[in-house]
Amino acid sequence: MNRGLVTLLTDFGTGDSYVAEVVASVLHYAPDARLVHISHQVSQGDVGSAHYLLARSWHRFPEGTVHLTVVDPGVGTGRRALALEHHGHRFVGPDNGVFSSVLDGSLVIGLPVGSEASATFHGRDVFGPAAGKLAHGVPLEALGGRVEPTVRLSAPRLERKEKLIVGEVVYVDGFGNLITNVPSSDLSRLVSVSVRGTRLPELSRTFADVADGQPLAYLGSGGTLEIAVANGSARRELGAGMGDVVEVELED
Amino acid sequence: MNRGLVTLLTDFGTGDSYVAEVVASVLHYAPDARLVHISHQVSQGDVGSAHYLLARSWHRFPEGTVHLTVVDPGVGTGRRALALEHHGHRFVGPDNGVFSSVLDGSLVIGLPVGSEASATFHGRDVFGPAAGKLAHGVPLEALGGRVEPTVRLSAPRLERKEKLIVGEVVYVDGFGNLITNVPSSDLSRLVSVSVRGTRLPELSRTFADVADGQPLAYLGSGGTLEIAVANGSARRELGAGMGDVVEVELED
Amino acid sequence: MNRGLVTLLTDFGTGDSYVAEVVASVLHYAPDARLVHISHQVSQGDVGSAHYLLARSWHRFPEGTVHLTVVDPGVGTGRRALALEHHGHRFVGPDNGVFSSVLDGSLVIGLPVGSEASATFHGRDVFGPAAGKLAHGVPLEALGGRVEPTVRLSAPRLERKEKLIVGEVVYVDGFGNLITNVPSSDLSRLVSVSVRGTRLPELSRTFADVADGQPLAYLGSGGTLEIAVANGSARRELGAGMGDVVEVELED
Repeated sequence: MNRGLVTLLTDFGTGDSYVAEVVASVLHYAPDARLVHISHQVSQGDVGSAHYLLARSWHRFPEGTVHLTVVDPGVGTGRRALALEHHGHRFVGPDNGVFSSVLDGSLVIGLPVGSEASATFHGRDVFGPAAGKLAHGVPLEALGGRVEPTVRLSAPRLERKEKLIVGEVVYVDGFGNLITNVPSSDLSRLVSVSVRGTRLPELSRTFADVADGQPLAYLGSGGTLEIAVANGSARRELGAGMGDVVEVELED
Repeated sequence: MNRGLVTLLTDFGTGDSYVAEVVASVLHYAPDARLVHISHQVSQGDVGSAHYLLARSWHRFPEGTVHLTVVDPGVGTGRRALALEHHGHRFVGPDNGVFSSVLDGSLVIGLPVGSEASATFHGRDVFGPAAGKLAHGVPLEALGGRVEPTVRLSAPRLERKEKLIVGEVVYVDGFGNLITNVPSSDLSRLVSVSVRGTRLPELSRTFADVADGQPLAYLGSGGTLEIAVANGSARRELGAGMGDVVEVELED
Repeated sequence: MNRGLVTLLTDFGTGDSYVAEVVASVLHYAPDARLVHISHQVSQGDVGSAHYLLARSWHRFPEGTVHLTVVDPGVGTGRRALALEHHGHRFVGPDNGVFSSVLDGSLVIGLPVGSEASATFHGRDVFGPAAGKLAHGVPLEALGGRVEPTVRLSAPRLERKEKLIVGEVVYVDGFGNLITNVPSSDLSRLVSVSVRGTRLPELSRTFADVADGQPLAYLGSGGTLEIAVANGSARRELGAGMGDVVEVELED
């Protein structure tokens, strides 16, 4: 088990010292920990996007990795603080749905929030220390008592009809690519993809398959249908965003 | 003593290769050094903000850490280059006030600037190598001769009257939160907080204590009074910024 | 030979999980690798800027370093995937000119692109694993077959006349400084520098040599002529950018 790897995913931005203060709190308990930054540019309080980024990346790290995820609009309220284990990985963060995809079959622990913790920075005062302890080899059960099922995000819409699949945009990346929840297994009989009134009559392989500025649908690197504009932004050009309905027309 | 940890704090941005060139210059002298990035997004030449970020974060790292701080509008002029030791931590950077909070009782060394150093990139050619040497175990005194007191920033305004404390906004973070210099010890008799014509009639605990878009005053994670707008930007909503006067009204 | 250092240079941005997924793919093959991020903010598909950043920074790292460079508008097309060795350093990325400055005398290998690789994310599925293997000690020749000369960027204009040198802006950095291809050896007889109608009648040493807001020409930290505006942006103030002609007038 790799005890030293800790990933960080927050909405703290990188302009202030907040991320470094979290890193210091991890290193205080795990002096040899190695940090990998997933992102600190999640929109303020956007639990859904943080959930997406965590869900697509955690399993790419070695077993034993600790994933510290702090997008936490409820910091300082009664929302629970969690540490959990799922398929040999450990996760630390607030109980607000960000861990929805890694709760099944998991051992979930409630972390105590000491009175010395600031009310606005649990990333540094509660979650960082817990992640550091886990990275240093402290067992999960030593961090708190077991708790019952926690907050889950409602699943995005995904309806399969005879000749139509209706899904959603579940994330928009920094290029403006629209990432949907329609899995690759649903794309074999694809006739067209429609989003926000734009209809794409085929599945492309990669960006260079269409001219610059043209939209395309393709199987994305996260394993689901994506819609992009070659060398441009589908978010901007198609006026689409998170939660928008995506329709996949199927052949008979 | 932890010889290998080096923090970096600059106004270089992260778009160019400048930070990596500094990292390379550290690794040249300390191949095993581990780097922690505090921020590279300090506004160009904003020594005051760099000073704030350094002051609130350095002591969270283990003793022996080297703090490389390069916000340096006077690069290439006669301003001195410094390395100093303070409470077991080492600091390397320009003599322009960025180290004001860590000068008391410190051993301060003037770093020689070789003729081969570029005139515009001492971060890479002077400070990085010095930080690398310190991280690798070279004693501070081996890097140059002792020098006398250096540039200090003037302290921000903090006046305590019978029923009023007058302080200042000393930093605005990436969320637009206004961080003041009024310490927690001054908040026990608080009646109200005023900044830029907005009066907040109580001290909140955390952001969720008020509705989204509403302003609040609270004890921040840096140990001083802060003013924020829940899920918004106090900088923008209240039209406030660095140096603005903050008044704390006290009860009898 | 330092087997564990891997630099990353991409146009992925830092808001999504893409960089972390690449890091995970490197660590999968080289668990002890140490990552240094050069930049992830290259403009989408801007091979020329990536080439500049790589060319000025790679040689500052220790021999044996692996430089993973993925600015790859042709991802998923027939463009080749490369790994190469140059002066004891290794480079991994697409065959699109980004390695133009490190091809001479290099051993160049074509990397196989497996059918399991996504068509849009070779950084994670092709280049990251190759970089990880190299960082872990796998010899270059074990990664693929030798290939012949590859895509090179056309050299920027640099003409030397009797009393005039005509060069180009080859990069604009995050401060808006204009970096040219006119080397320091051409500056000894400098009379003036002109770009976009602005004529600078001397070579300054550093930014503080002129008043804030004033333009200056100076020998930059990359070893070539640069044009900046003190505490401002030459890009914005002079209306200049990449590819703009720069004229250096020489004395007799």
